[in-house]
Amino acid sequence: MRINRARLAESMEALGKIGETARGGLNRVALTDDDRRGRDLLVRWMKEAGLAVTVDQMGNLFGLRAGTETRPPVFMGSHADSVPSGGKYDGQLGVLCALETLRSLNDRQARTRHPVGMIVFTNEEGARFQPAMIASGVMAGKIPLEDAYNTRDRDGVRLVDELERIGYLGSEPCVPRPMRAYLELHIEQGPLLEEEGLPLGVVEGIVAIAWSRITLHGVQDHAGPTPMRLRHDALVAAAEIVTGVRGIARHIAGDMVATVGRLDLTPNIPNAIPGRVVLSVDFRDPQEANLDRALAMLDHVVRVAIRQEGVRAEVEHYWRVPRTPFDPEVVGVVEAAAASLGCGHRRIISGAGHDAQYMAAICPTGMIFVPSRGGRSHCEEEFTALDDIEHGANALLLACARLAGAESATRAP
Amino acid sequence: MRINRARLAESMEALGKIGETARGGLNRVALTDDDRRGRDLLVRWMKEAGLAVTVDQMGNLFGLRAGTETRPPVFMGSHADSVPSGGKYDGQLGVLCALETLRSLNDRQARTRHPVGMIVFTNEEGARFQPAMIASGVMAGKIPLEDAYNTRDRDGVRLVDELERIGYLGSEPCVPRPMRAYLELHIEQGPLLEEEGLPLGVVEGIVAIAWSRITLHGVQDHAGPTPMRLRHDALVAAAEIVTGVRGIARHIAGDMVATVGRLDLTPNIPNAIPGRVVLSVDFRDPQEANLDRALAMLDHVVRVAIRQEGVRAEVEHYWRVPRTPFDPEVVGVVEAAAASLGCGHRRIISGAGHDAQYMAAICPTGMIFVPSRGGRSHCEEEFTALDDIEHGANALLLACARLAGAESATRAP
Repeated sequence: MRINRARLAESMEALGKIGETARGGLNRVALTDDDRRGRDLLVRWMKEAGLAVTVDQMGNLFGLRAGTETRPPVFMGSHADSVPSGGKYDGQLGVLCALETLRSLNDRQARTRHPVGMIVFTNEEGARFQPAMIASGVMAGKIPLEDAYNTRDRDGVRLVDELERIGYLGSEPCVPRPMRAYLELHIEQGPLLEEEGLPLGVVEGIVAIAWSRITLHGVQDHAGPTPMRLRHDALVAAAEIVTGVRGIARHIAGDMVATVGRLDLTPNIPNAIPGRVVLSVDFRDPQEANLDRALAMLDHVVRVAIRQEGVRAEVEHYWRVPRTPFDPEVVGVVEAAAASLGCGHRRIISGAGHDAQYMAAICPTGMIFVPSRGGRSHCEEEFTALDDIEHGANALLLACARLAGAESATRAP
Repeated sequence: MRINRARLAESMEALGKIGETARGGLNRVALTDDDRRGRDLLVRWMKEAGLAVTVDQMGNLFGLRAGTETRPPVFMGSHADSVPSGGKYDGQLGVLCALETLRSLNDRQARTRHPVGMIVFTNEEGARFQPAMIASGVMAGKIPLEDAYNTRDRDGVRLVDELERIGYLGSEPCVPRPMRAYLELHIEQGPLLEEEGLPLGVVEGIVAIAWSRITLHGVQDHAGPTPMRLRHDALVAAAEIVTGVRGIARHIAGDMVATVGRLDLTPNIPNAIPGRVVLSVDFRDPQEANLDRALAMLDHVVRVAIRQEGVRAEVEHYWRVPRTPFDPEVVGVVEAAAASLGCGHRRIISGAGHDAQYMAAICPTGMIFVPSRGGRSHCEEEFTALDDIEHGANALLLACARLAGAESATRAP
């Protein structure tokens, strides 16, 4: 049993047109009009594949294919939103490989004891509404629905209002439901598979992640007549923190990564001393203890920076996802699928967060990685070769069929 | 002859309502709808004061009161635009004191040999369209009209299109015209007058100013799976430059001030390594040689920062205004006016750029400063006491009457 490579490529092409950037990347940020158009197309395809489609309170889309027995379903999934100038593989690929798996099961009229379904998660990226993975977080009971609804974007628009506006505020409860397993195919977003020339990564788990928000309150003033001795420049303190965050990663070393990805100034004009800066800090490490060390070091870096410049800081360590090991049985099934395809693979730890991280709290979970050219993602240059994608999709199909109890996939014509 | 304090306060109150912020500041950025509403009110007042009102190609407003002889006019003026979260004194005060002077001349039916007029300059702040003081720059022949017209704001909107949209794209040529003198009253925006308890500053000139724009091109990537060893983070390089700019001011010392006031990231989300940063650098010093040193040091700081992080930089030193000494006769007339009012005053160098800086290239020019509480400006807390404003406006009236050859102001009833 194999997927249909041409059909998968065609779907990638069609969905990738919605929100396509001039340079061939993707700008389909969560709950925008383009997100709605993408969802509309996915729902049409899901219905054409004979799936029972439902939408939950967080706008997550479900498409279910019946099994022969009343058992908890095997779900595959990922997200369809992108970062503002992102690529056509992060998220979208996992959704389309899930759909292609279901279409392939249909092609063979395959019967599975467990129902098999797909999920398209809302706002995985966290580019517009923080935190990331908010909808799987609600589903796993880790984020209260009310908090998620009231999250606001930079313009003060609430997530729930945007869900309603684009017509995807569903009525299905967004709560844990019985699931046999959850499988997510995703691009690696790192350099390892490419560096080792392997088409498949068998993901063993996801690193621990901590997000902080630091707000610096200086004194906004005119850049000309304000002597240096009187300045309390929020950006000068912020620069010390950016440098300090890089230093923390260097100090802890190993697999620690640390990033200041967002930094907003007020008033942000050439001739005013910045009065306020808001910046984000993202720490990740496979070891929880290293995150604890990093956060303590960050507090120290902030204290020194603000004392030096005479500004005030609010530090919010507002989001933390613990290290998530995946289910040994599911990881084993994925590994066996890769082996039976005869293609090179290795076990790997994900440095990126994924909805699978929250799903692991609900049911046995695993992931499949395909290589990212140059290790790059969250950019328009994001690329994975179709050969690798085909291997990944076939591994997903085989693993899914196995977990769902397909009536001897090998028996099919 | 004295101005009417109550009438001036009333006008400040009325104009300050247009674009007022919740915290009592002013947000009336150039060529917005609020800027148009402010201009409409000023034009109405100018006409009610019997002035001949014209608008030039850069949207500068002129209001002229006839003299008894055919001579070049004395102009007073300032600007009516503000920074995004600015105050109600920067710019607006100079415009209203000019209007109040003209109204006061009317009250006395004063006759002047030279016509007396007021100018309201477009986009002095440079908050939306760079460089600052663009309209007086065009008038002085220092900035080509076409360049000014094609300047774009952050959203890519051209200055000329916004001028037309708000109905202030006039037909009068924006070129040097014969002027007896130009006088501008402004808040000090620095701490000196307040620290010394003086209500009036007799401005001798303006510091030299240099603006640079630095664009850093790193590699945008995912904040999770991208190992530290592969990163080329534009913000990490930018942070080194912000710190370096502060170091330049510390090194040159004296009256040098240095500010990074604007910094824009792409894509500016918590989980992407910043691929691009654009930042502004503003250097000011009374001595040209110090600016030359600062710019050379900046080039060095950028070279070190980009080499360290493996990013690429474009450095544009795109705007420079030389040190501007004001006209000794005009400075003397202002000083005599301050003395005849019997109020404390001192000579002072302006650390802020003003339209007077360009006007000094066209005609004998001078300025009057009134104190800024806490030295603060370009913020909502900007404040000048009405007593100080009254002294300043009276000095403006007396100096203007003197320069315009009023028929013995002391003879008036």
